[in-house]
Amino acid sequence: MSALQASRLLADVLHGTPPQQRRAMAKAITLLESTRPDHRRDADALLNALLPHTGQAFRLGISGVPGVGKSTFIEALGLYLIGQGHRVAVLAVDPSSSVSGGSILGDKTRMEKLSVHERAYIRPSPSSGNLGGVAAKTREAMLVCEAAGYDIVIVETVGVGQSETAVADMTDMFCVLQLPNAGDDLQAIKKGIMELADLVVINKADLDPDAATRAQAQITSALRLLGLHGRPDTAHHDDTLWHPRVIQLSALQGRGVDAFWQAVSDYRRLQTANGRLAARRQRQARAWMWDRIDSGLREAFAQHPAVRQRLPALLDAVLAGQVVASAAARELLGAFLSAPPPAGGDVPEPLCLNDRSL
Amino acid sequence: MSALQASRLLADVLHGTPPQQRRAMAKAITLLESTRPDHRRDADALLNALLPHTGQAFRLGISGVPGVGKSTFIEALGLYLIGQGHRVAVLAVDPSSSVSGGSILGDKTRMEKLSVHERAYIRPSPSSGNLGGVAAKTREAMLVCEAAGYDIVIVETVGVGQSETAVADMTDMFCVLQLPNAGDDLQAIKKGIMELADLVVINKADLDPDAATRAQAQITSALRLLGLHGRPDTAHHDDTLWHPRVIQLSALQGRGVDAFWQAVSDYRRLQTANGRLAARRQRQARAWMWDRIDSGLREAFAQHPAVRQRLPALLDAVLAGQVVASAAARELLGAFLSAPPPAGGDVPEPLCLNDRSL
Repeated sequence: MSALQASRLLADVLHGTPPQQRRAMAKAITLLESTRPDHRRDADALLNALLPHTGQAFRLGISGVPGVGKSTFIEALGLYLIGQGHRVAVLAVDPSSSVSGGSILGDKTRMEKLSVHERAYIRPSPSSGNLGGVAAKTREAMLVCEAAGYDIVIVETVGVGQSETAVADMTDMFCVLQLPNAGDDLQAIKKGIMELADLVVINKADLDPDAATRAQAQITSALRLLGLHGRPDTAHHDDTLWHPRVIQLSALQGRGVDAFWQAVSDYRRLQTANGRLAARRQRQARAWMWDRIDSGLREAFAQHPAVRQRLPALLDAVLAGQVVASAAARELLGAFLSAPPPAGGDVPEPLCLNDRSL
Repeated sequence: MSALQASRLLADVLHGTPPQQRRAMAKAITLLESTRPDHRRDADALLNALLPHTGQAFRLGISGVPGVGKSTFIEALGLYLIGQGHRVAVLAVDPSSSVSGGSILGDKTRMEKLSVHERAYIRPSPSSGNLGGVAAKTREAMLVCEAAGYDIVIVETVGVGQSETAVADMTDMFCVLQLPNAGDDLQAIKKGIMELADLVVINKADLDPDAATRAQAQITSALRLLGLHGRPDTAHHDDTLWHPRVIQLSALQGRGVDAFWQAVSDYRRLQTANGRLAARRQRQARAWMWDRIDSGLREAFAQHPAVRQRLPALLDAVLAGQVVASAAARELLGAFLSAPPPAGGDVPEPLCLNDRSL
């Protein structure tokens, strides 16, 4: 990209007319999703130029199993927020999209009204294969949206594998949608999700109000057992800290969206005042940098000729109980560190060595 | 170490008289805890030679907060197992031991009878600073104990930070000890622990039998909510799979140790028959190898002169919102990969770059 093209792209993302801006955002996000080294350099320059114009938006993560009604909820929420004067961007993290062809947000008809609104910007999940790569691209796309003036960024995930953690790690607040089954039929809450949730939403509460109320009580009780839910009646409760809440909602009927947004606003006000929001973002930025470093080191390692040559047999020997895992690791590290990696600062995507299935 | 010394050490670990063997085990474990490169090479050779004689033992992880009665329980269990004809090794993972001077198993008087028994071998936590290092040394010490014929290896942890995960990742079964408080006083269960537990033990049940029973019911219910506990009355229950159990016990009065061991034996039989135990060990070996590779890569990275020079300012810029985290990561990776790391295959311990607090 020429310097002129780059400065035009930057200007259009920041200040373009609505159609210009929309085209520039799509172009910028496509650029940063590219794996071509020259694109990557242009994308880094663009991101660093956009960065001063980011950070003012609220970043909201939303997770839930298929069928819980995420699209309906996000459309209702998005339209509500636009009605309040906001501009809303919706992004997605779906590491399976490269396989499935994009199961979330790929089909814009899922959010018919929101997707055609000029104050909304919807972008499906990048499809770069592994979760770390998908999450990194989505983080960067989030910065593009923020620089373009979208002040609410929603990041959606279906909750495949570790994707909830990835979304919680890039957002200011993480919400989990649940179905209103209760008692013996209460669907199991996915491992580790309860600990990430700042807000649990029992969606489709109109289907069975009693079940929704029981589910609310049960989840509140589980949060308490996990030490995550404050108890207003005890000394453990601290008014200056956020304690995860459980609320009911019916997105289809449009009921509860205002209560949802009230809870989000409470969270934002409290966590801004007590400094937790700023601390969370700093922690996320640091962790993101190290995550990308770790990922890059692993890729360079997995592509190294000496490692590629020795790894399969050594791993077989480890799995067969013939070589101690730590000794195998030291042998491979020695091979990697004693010879410089292949020329070229740009590390290619790994083949299959990096997915740990080897 | 000369070849003669090495083969003598190997022979004494495998077949020495009790006092010879005990001295050889201590010497072997000290060797593998050393960071000197020549020691490390000797240790790797020794471990690979011991490896064919390992793997027959059962590896039991035990976790619980201070005060829950771990030492009393492990002593009671160890003596019970010795009475059944077993030989019992007790190791510990305590990443704080380098700071605290060894808070668990450092003081052998905590297990007075077990520690002097010739069929028991007790070793305090290695104190190598970070959790990954401590866990790696403990895994290797476990192999020494197994090769010496200890058929039950217990790995204890106090549950500081991520140490429970580390212990669950190196053992065949992970047990969590809890105190018998219930209701509003039920102590919060540490984040993520419930998902690791194959067995939850309400210890000191004699203190308040009613509270213990209530705690048992509450934890069972939480396990169910998390989808971890099988329900015998539903189609979700599969008799060929292990479903985490919650039992009561009073180690001080010696009550419940046999029921505990019965549950462990049930687990071992079931998970051996369905292939899960073998699969868990293979998964652990693979993960251990990659963990050591990741750790070694990070150490080499953090010690690289170009990285040391640029990292502090770049990280400041990331935290101040002046540079995008992923762009900073790419810049540092480029510096690392474009120049070979300092000579010498052996990577020094990192100073403080690796603890992510920077």
